[in-house]
Amino acid sequence: MSRIAVIVGSLRKESLNRKIALSVAKLAPPVLEMSLVEIGSLPLYNEDLEADHPSQWTIFRDRVRAIDGGLLVTPEYHRGGPGGLKNSIDVGSRPYGRSVWDKKPVAVISVSPGAIGGYGANHALRQSFVFL
Amino acid sequence: MSRIAVIVGSLRKESLNRKIALSVAKLAPPVLEMSLVEIGSLPLYNEDLEADHPSQWTIFRDRVRAIDGGLLVTPEYHRGGPGGLKNSIDVGSRPYGRSVWDKKPVAVISVSPGAIGGYGANHALRQSFVFL
Repeated sequence: MSRIAVIVGSLRKESLNRKIALSVAKLAPPVLEMSLVEIGSLPLYNEDLEADHPSQWTIFRDRVRAIDGGLLVTPEYHRGGPGGLKNSIDVGSRPYGRSVWDKKPVAVISVSPGAIGGYGANHALRQSFVFL
Repeated sequence: MSRIAVIVGSLRKESLNRKIALSVAKLAPPVLEMSLVEIGSLPLYNEDLEADHPSQWTIFRDRVRAIDGGLLVTPEYHRGGPGGLKNSIDVGSRPYGRSVWDKKPVAVISVSPGAIGGYGANHALRQSFVFL
């Protein structure tokens, strides 16, 4: 059994990406345990806060540390992922040397009504995770 | 006289990028009026909040709407800009059709102690603004 964190890039309640994420989670074979990890209340990353950091950061980092892989399902905002999604990646990657993304496979699904289907978001996020 | 909004990607008080931004602002010729626009307290973009949106969004949008151009000074976080910086771009770009970035030239300076000097952040942000 592998535990997969599903992270939705859009914060809208009726987000198309959220619906797709839930559908994908339902379709997953039993060897995958898919669970949604929320990012909407994560304070923006700021290294100055690290010494006494927000509890939301701790909760998020603990969640991601415990999983075997990630699945991002996201819209595209101007050829990139939403700032909030990138912020969750930033928060998870710090403090330096203790990234919770370390050695975790992460897949990206981008969903968009636009003609290129979120290619830009997909590409930008892939670049981040190739690095991480 | 052109009014330039300077936006710093890092939220650290002692940020190298903030120092560079302030130095650049000082070096600017008198035809440029440079002013820092802060992004650290902008709530994450969520279309659901638009109808009764946070006052920080209004303040930020009004500031950017009033300028002639922008200058982003930013570190690189994993081959992209910080999530908080991208969030400010997202907030400014909405509601759809009323982007405050419309027809504004924006330059990007990336500062990093790393070998590629923030190339990834620079590239990703440029992609966003070419689109916007």
